[in-house]
Amino acid sequence: MIEFVCDYAEGAHERILQKLVETNYVQTPGYGEDKFCQEARDLIRKHCKAPKADVHFLEGGTQTNLTVISSALRPHQGVVAAECGHIAVHETGAIEATGHKVLPVESADGKIKPEQIRQLYYSHIQDVNHEHLVQPKMVYISNPTEYGLLYSLNELQAVFDACRECGYYLYMDGARMGYGLASSVNSLALADIARLCDVFYIGGTKCGAMFGEAVVITNDVLKEDFRYMIKQKGGMLAKGRMLGIQFLELFRDNLYFDICAHGNRLSARMKQGFLEKGWELYVDSNTNQQFPIIPNDILKKIGEKYSYCIFEKREDNTTVARFCTSWATKECQVDEFLEDLKQW
Amino acid sequence: MIEFVCDYAEGAHERILQKLVETNYVQTPGYGEDKFCQEARDLIRKHCKAPKADVHFLEGGTQTNLTVISSALRPHQGVVAAECGHIAVHETGAIEATGHKVLPVESADGKIKPEQIRQLYYSHIQDVNHEHLVQPKMVYISNPTEYGLLYSLNELQAVFDACRECGYYLYMDGARMGYGLASSVNSLALADIARLCDVFYIGGTKCGAMFGEAVVITNDVLKEDFRYMIKQKGGMLAKGRMLGIQFLELFRDNLYFDICAHGNRLSARMKQGFLEKGWELYVDSNTNQQFPIIPNDILKKIGEKYSYCIFEKREDNTTVARFCTSWATKECQVDEFLEDLKQW
Amino acid sequence: MIEFVCDYAEGAHERILQKLVETNYVQTPGYGEDKFCQEARDLIRKHCKAPKADVHFLEGGTQTNLTVISSALRPHQGVVAAECGHIAVHETGAIEATGHKVLPVESADGKIKPEQIRQLYYSHIQDVNHEHLVQPKMVYISNPTEYGLLYSLNELQAVFDACRECGYYLYMDGARMGYGLASSVNSLALADIARLCDVFYIGGTKCGAMFGEAVVITNDVLKEDFRYMIKQKGGMLAKGRMLGIQFLELFRDNLYFDICAHGNRLSARMKQGFLEKGWELYVDSNTNQQFPIIPNDILKKIGEKYSYCIFEKREDNTTVARFCTSWATKECQVDEFLEDLKQW
Amino acid sequence: MIEFVCDYAEGAHERILQKLVETNYVQTPGYGEDKFCQEARDLIRKHCKAPKADVHFLEGGTQTNLTVISSALRPHQGVVAAECGHIAVHETGAIEATGHKVLPVESADGKIKPEQIRQLYYSHIQDVNHEHLVQPKMVYISNPTEYGLLYSLNELQAVFDACRECGYYLYMDGARMGYGLASSVNSLALADIARLCDVFYIGGTKCGAMFGEAVVITNDVLKEDFRYMIKQKGGMLAKGRMLGIQFLELFRDNLYFDICAHGNRLSARMKQGFLEKGWELYVDSNTNQQFPIIPNDILKKIGEKYSYCIFEKREDNTTVARFCTSWATKECQVDEFLEDLKQW
Repeated sequence: MIEFVCDYAEGAHERILQKLVETNYVQTPGYGEDKFCQEARDLIRKHCKAPKADVHFLEGGTQTNLTVISSALRPHQGVVAAECGHIAVHETGAIEATGHKVLPVESADGKIKPEQIRQLYYSHIQDVNHEHLVQPKMVYISNPTEYGLLYSLNELQAVFDACRECGYYLYMDGARMGYGLASSVNSLALADIARLCDVFYIGGTKCGAMFGEAVVITNDVLKEDFRYMIKQKGGMLAKGRMLGIQFLELFRDNLYFDICAHGNRLSARMKQGFLEKGWELYVDSNTNQQFPIIPNDILKKIGEKYSYCIFEKREDNTTVARFCTSWATKECQVDEFLEDLKQW
Repeated sequence: MIEFVCDYAEGAHERILQKLVETNYVQTPGYGEDKFCQEARDLIRKHCKAPKADVHFLEGGTQTNLTVISSALRPHQGVVAAECGHIAVHETGAIEATGHKVLPVESADGKIKPEQIRQLYYSHIQDVNHEHLVQPKMVYISNPTEYGLLYSLNELQAVFDACRECGYYLYMDGARMGYGLASSVNSLALADIARLCDVFYIGGTKCGAMFGEAVVITNDVLKEDFRYMIKQKGGMLAKGRMLGIQFLELFRDNLYFDICAHGNRLSARMKQGFLEKGWELYVDSNTNQQFPIIPNDILKKIGEKYSYCIFEKREDNTTVARFCTSWATKECQVDEFLEDLKQW
Repeated sequence: MIEFVCDYAEGAHERILQKLVETNYVQTPGYGEDKFCQEARDLIRKHCKAPKADVHFLEGGTQTNLTVISSALRPHQGVVAAECGHIAVHETGAIEATGHKVLPVESADGKIKPEQIRQLYYSHIQDVNHEHLVQPKMVYISNPTEYGLLYSLNELQAVFDACRECGYYLYMDGARMGYGLASSVNSLALADIARLCDVFYIGGTKCGAMFGEAVVITNDVLKEDFRYMIKQKGGMLAKGRMLGIQFLELFRDNLYFDICAHGNRLSARMKQGFLEKGWELYVDSNTNQQFPIIPNDILKKIGEKYSYCIFEKREDNTTVARFCTSWATKECQVDEFLEDLKQW
Repeated sequence: MIEFVCDYAEGAHERILQKLVETNYVQTPGYGEDKFCQEARDLIRKHCKAPKADVHFLEGGTQTNLTVISSALRPHQGVVAAECGHIAVHETGAIEATGHKVLPVESADGKIKPEQIRQLYYSHIQDVNHEHLVQPKMVYISNPTEYGLLYSLNELQAVFDACRECGYYLYMDGARMGYGLASSVNSLALADIARLCDVFYIGGTKCGAMFGEAVVITNDVLKEDFRYMIKQKGGMLAKGRMLGIQFLELFRDNLYFDICAHGNRLSARMKQGFLEKGWELYVDSNTNQQFPIIPNDILKKIGEKYSYCIFEKREDNTTVARFCTSWATKECQVDEFLEDLKQW
């Protein structure tokens, strides 16, 4: 069985493992206050051209989302997300469990438009009983989105402008950020993201790390006491160095971008394969996820040898499926898949 | 600088690292549903002689505590803990953040007595306005306690009996359980703990793992939907295998116990050293933490070369300090310390 | 200015005020344990033909909803509501503030259909990653709905059946229940509601009381420790008698039903007036709320003398407005309105 | 049976009832935006000499405490209270249910000393791991305290100074504030309280109202969006006028103070009676609560005719009991009690 079901089917990039072995007996203080974390923070600040940003390392995406969002909001405030946004559907109500409503906006591809933000704002303040409504205060976007799509620089700038106009924080979930930044169609630099988001995270788990996400906070208001929040929500790793060492290795050269580019390239090959079969794609993704619409009988056959994810069963005997590649996918796995694909 | 400040200053036991390297490219499903986790669960159930127990792997102690406790309690219920218990003081209000009061009981050494449990119960139900009080429902104990002490089999049985009588769940925080089980004065087997606790966790982070704790649930009522809770609270690692592999390695033979016995033995050597200096010990610990009461001037000198933790500054120019050893402490580090100690 | 904007523009029915004056110096215990509350509870149980039901008095609708729902659910569970349901939109995230997601289902008129409940259930359990989703556990319905519509006996039975099948609790918000029960098209008796709902509340605030709602719990599981929950959420009135006295007066004869019938009758006259103007009604309501679709210029004129509520501005220069009557609306107020209506 | 068990055994002052009857059919907007509430707010601001203060009306003490405190704190912050403070013991964990720890400080009489505040502050910031501790941010005091004692002007000034020094908000629970302000030993004016507290509430429920508390916010930071918070926590009464009318009547002349002075005077007579029996008083209270230490056999006899509250059973066959008077207590009830007292 070859796994295309997700981008976390393997362990960690071998350079990370090697570094963990090398540093294993170095004694460090706990809770992320070690030198590895400090160096990793500096590197990330440099990549982001944000020398004053705060950088924190957490263990996973849901944990990061709930910690960031609950730290930023007052009790009556909510976070705006695309209706298919990860926090809106796939985190078992983690945000609500911290007391905050996720305010969904319609989106077929996972992107939020500036006019949706403005509309939400005006419909809120114009309601005579707006105190009976949850007050929007933060906009959550994913880049790439859950459907593998990217915000262009212009689009992100426009979302940022709308947020500023409405007094909302902008938060970017970068679980797959590496694949976004390394995409052939990407127009965003890390420094743009740092400039246009109040807070965002650079995903490690899906981009070569064993686990871990790096939260970057550029808005001073959101920096205060964030470490208390990490501890309270259970995300402060005793051996915080484990996170620092991983990000240090990913960012000390171009590793993070290179290995994600590899994932994207293999994904592009699969995309080409799907198109050659004459199958439609649900979205035109140029990152590491593809969403072909596949006849059910063929999908079943594929499933005997390759794992994938079902996104939507259609009434015309087709299914929107998701195929993921990653930094760890091997060229030969894709070769084999494409060879088989031709048979079916 | 040699670190005796905590038991998480190094990485992971090398057998764990080696195993992570070996298994790195095996493809597995995510979220703890891989074969490594399954095998590790089976091993732990076997060690616990609890074939029907549910076993889950989480990342750290605070996360485990808040997930277990908030899963078990209804909103008006609270958890009883020693006033120096970890959840009562050192988790930034993590339990309260899930909505529950920690009900402290007096304790100099971190242990809770059965009569304290009964007293709490009766004083609650006899209050005419008990509906205005938080209802105790769970008793949280640490073994070893925050002061390195152990419950004997008789003591644990008595705490269990009191809990049953009052209708309370018994939960054991085993952050340092390995050191407890491997202690020269221990009378508890893992099977006893599994029999007498409704839920407990076997600490990995401080006992040889890179990170991770294994929650064991023996009470059927507490088993239901626990994985939803892990996900909601941010503790469900995408690459859950990382946790499974570590516990698999710790429990496939006697590794967990052997390496903790090593930490205890070095701690006993330090204890002997303190006693030879004529210093009192705050408690008589036979695990990996020692709490000598040291004249401030000497403590300062120690601090130039060795790190430790301050527990209490006394009025007589002495300080209760904590010195930790661990699975990773080297014999030569203790040799050096004891040699120096003689000089001061 | 004559208020048709809501059904809480006046004080309380005069019989209630009179009773409060009469009983003012009777000394009673606090917190709802007085004889007035006991008697009122008995009366309500009798009306409900539910001798074993628990009855509690709370102060307002949002408080009642958040107390009932947070008492019933475990942290990972959510409550299903129509997308226009009060808890989904008009309670400032009160339910989320207790940690629970409101799971919206589409509904134009505020009613939920049994097949929607089943679909939610199956789509949840069939999701391979259902532990990453909020688990539905309670269905919240309003009767009358926010649009003044009623569940028929058959409809409620069908919703009940779907809930039983899925293992969900059924909760009815009866903020305007009096108008529902007194409606000319109603087919539900209080006893039916008590038989088919696990918990519901009989609204006082909008049906003649100064304030107050009576929660009726028929499902034993939901009864346990509910008074703790009322206290914790701030709903336990020190002078609980104030609530008991009001419900005692409303239910010691037919007062509750009679005064709501009065409100319905006046509403029906207004409905007739709207229809005679040739205006469409957004829904065919037979309770105390009417939703005519009115040309904007006329609506503006109405607004100079009569208050109303705006539900939806349409693109064709019309508006869906809401006009409420109540137990307190005077015949002459409606006469005057209908007279004026003819002029416009 | 004559009730001395609490100060909420009767209804409301008759002038309040009369006013409710008089205004019953006046139509007003809901949710506290009516003219009665506006007038009552103005009156209270005037009494407080705080023209810029925000004034809000809520229904009860627990509701007020949980709304004020959860509105002011970020998730990692806690509220300091005397260990016998109402929020610490008698609100079923209402504060914790909003996510915040109550940080208890020792106090025999319910008062907090400025040095306790400073000590808490320094011990927090000096802890190397203070991010693992709940951060104190608000100090909660009761005046009168749960034991009927008062802060003098100097004492309150000193508590205020300590709070300012530490960056803490000062919040006063004034459930029985009327009895405090009307006490023979009181040195605080409402204007002093408004000047020295960031937020406080003026109790209605125990001081002549049917129910209701008036929150006064003087600190601009705490004013923002408070109405959202009231709505979310279930405290926004639809017929908000009910609260406005009551406070309007209590504060339009000296009624609030006069009726509380009456309660105090009767309490002083009872105090005198206890002293004449040779009984010790647990504290020297000059408000409406007395805490005599009474031999158990006599207390039992008292209990056959008069209700009281038990505070502490002592080992020497005595009990600390609480006897409350109120605005509603009749002179003849105290006469009768004192007469009987002589017999026993």
